[in-house]
Amino acid sequence: MNEKITLDHGSGGRASHDLIKNLLLQVFNSKTLAPMEDSALVQIGQEKIAFSTDSFVVDPIFFPGGNIGDLAINGTVNDIAMRGAQPLYISVAMIIEEGFPISDLEKVIQSIKKSADIAEVEIITGDTKVVPKGKADKIFINTTGIGVLRQNFDISAANAVPGDHVILSGTMADHGVTIVSKQEGLQISGNFQSDSAALNHIIQKLLGHAQHHIHVLRDPTRGGVATTLNEIAESSKMGIRLKEDSLPIRNDVRGACELLGLDPLYLANEGKFLIFVEPSVSEQVIQILKEDKLGKDSQIIGQVTEENPGKVLIDSPLGTSRLLDMLHGTPLPRIC
Amino acid sequence: MNEKITLDHGSGGRASHDLIKNLLLQVFNSKTLAPMEDSALVQIGQEKIAFSTDSFVVDPIFFPGGNIGDLAINGTVNDIAMRGAQPLYISVAMIIEEGFPISDLEKVIQSIKKSADIAEVEIITGDTKVVPKGKADKIFINTTGIGVLRQNFDISAANAVPGDHVILSGTMADHGVTIVSKQEGLQISGNFQSDSAALNHIIQKLLGHAQHHIHVLRDPTRGGVATTLNEIAESSKMGIRLKEDSLPIRNDVRGACELLGLDPLYLANEGKFLIFVEPSVSEQVIQILKEDKLGKDSQIIGQVTEENPGKVLIDSPLGTSRLLDMLHGTPLPRIC
Repeated sequence: MNEKITLDHGSGGRASHDLIKNLLLQVFNSKTLAPMEDSALVQIGQEKIAFSTDSFVVDPIFFPGGNIGDLAINGTVNDIAMRGAQPLYISVAMIIEEGFPISDLEKVIQSIKKSADIAEVEIITGDTKVVPKGKADKIFINTTGIGVLRQNFDISAANAVPGDHVILSGTMADHGVTIVSKQEGLQISGNFQSDSAALNHIIQKLLGHAQHHIHVLRDPTRGGVATTLNEIAESSKMGIRLKEDSLPIRNDVRGACELLGLDPLYLANEGKFLIFVEPSVSEQVIQILKEDKLGKDSQIIGQVTEENPGKVLIDSPLGTSRLLDMLHGTPLPRIC
Repeated sequence: MNEKITLDHGSGGRASHDLIKNLLLQVFNSKTLAPMEDSALVQIGQEKIAFSTDSFVVDPIFFPGGNIGDLAINGTVNDIAMRGAQPLYISVAMIIEEGFPISDLEKVIQSIKKSADIAEVEIITGDTKVVPKGKADKIFINTTGIGVLRQNFDISAANAVPGDHVILSGTMADHGVTIVSKQEGLQISGNFQSDSAALNHIIQKLLGHAQHHIHVLRDPTRGGVATTLNEIAESSKMGIRLKEDSLPIRNDVRGACELLGLDPLYLANEGKFLIFVEPSVSEQVIQILKEDKLGKDSQIIGQVTEENPGKVLIDSPLGTSRLLDMLHGTPLPRIC
């Protein structure tokens, strides 16, 4: 085989999925390895443990609204929270390029500590590797987290049922637009800021009120809302129908996406989540979300259907509808 | 501060320790974060969980005796085993350079699977990131593992007591010499091979026989036997005295070290461990070790003393003795 890894394989979209399905899952062949979930769940003695890993290679490492340090903590905290588990402990492993300023490292470390404190997770182990200049780019950070599932929630990307309302907890594409505009060095008017945030507290609040009515929780990071919804549609073998004019998005972010030629539905979010919930409680869920600053722009954006299993459709305000596929082509490298 | 990260900061030696002590520990300020241990121990409900992370950046990625894949599994398995815990689950996060051949990725993945099977750990979650060509070197792999401590062993780098025999489970420097000779492109006579191996089964066997007499277990990876013994001496506030002529080393490895101008006491091992044990059972421990191919060259190499707390001394066959410090200066980059 002469094939080579392309940026597309790391996009979180279709090529990533194919690589995972055709190579990793074939070889690893594990019952527990659930590629469409944000974290794995295992039983250890009496405890149900959630376990999740993510490497962060974002470029630039400092950006409006955060840096690679808080992104790395929040990303893993959120992946654990999306199974209904409470994140408890986290590891931080850094690969640093020779010549990286220690003052920058200090800023990143401070940010890691601050975001871990906000999320109430404890950093209990770590690793530091240094590679020669030119063999890595500034700093890459892996975080791996352990959480505990204290109640028997059954929350999974495979659990969407027909009729479920699909809620998005806030505006789309804030992180993606912030990073891309910095990467491109564009001076676009707008006050973009990454939405990087820990979602575990708001999710625990939500589960406290509506736990048995919530079927799916997912944070739409790499690949954006469209890719994440496709994963849920595939895992649940259901269709999803979105209303385009209900999608929350800031005006300046929408404008920047038009300028950049990017669809905000495919741009990364780092402090938002999707909730699939029984329609009888969706208004109550929205109300709980809106009480928290992390959920103040939450909206019902669509519904689960029996028709078109595995597919996501979007209805425009003009009455037309189109298929919304996973991200493929034009990958955005190093968005997280 | 205009200081920059140097290769020395990633050597596992003195500069790494200073960075960890002066920056990471100051900021993270966690009671559980134990920098001198191979893995952290936390209580979750009824279970005592060991948790360890490591990133692997070895260059070359394929070498005699293994590749970056098995190294990544064995490294984390061993770090968990060194607390007396049984490794159960592992995550695999890869950062891949654009253009990396998929056939090479397949070899690495196969090796990850095979070594996980041998160690009897299950790969349950993962992550794949791709960075543009030139922004990383081929592939970096982070593994993070969870283990369970089923009995109340109290094994720690801080537990050495005067009189303890220090046992090394086999020959020194095999991994380090293999990698360095490949990096340098040297044609040195000798049949070098990395000792990369999972040590959890041999350690469980040992603990089954002598559990309450074993005080310290550590695998001397980055920085080698000398650096690891210094860490133990510091943590335990004890002295350690080695007998130079008792150190197990292959003749060809010793010869290569002389040619390369490297001290084998500072070269990495990836399938060896140090055991600090009550002298009354050290012969029994050696016997158990020698029954296993991973322990066939085990030797008593020294003893713990009350004198010279925090220091490691080595006695030459000529009757002189010298101080053996942690690795500092001349770092060997990308040894693991």
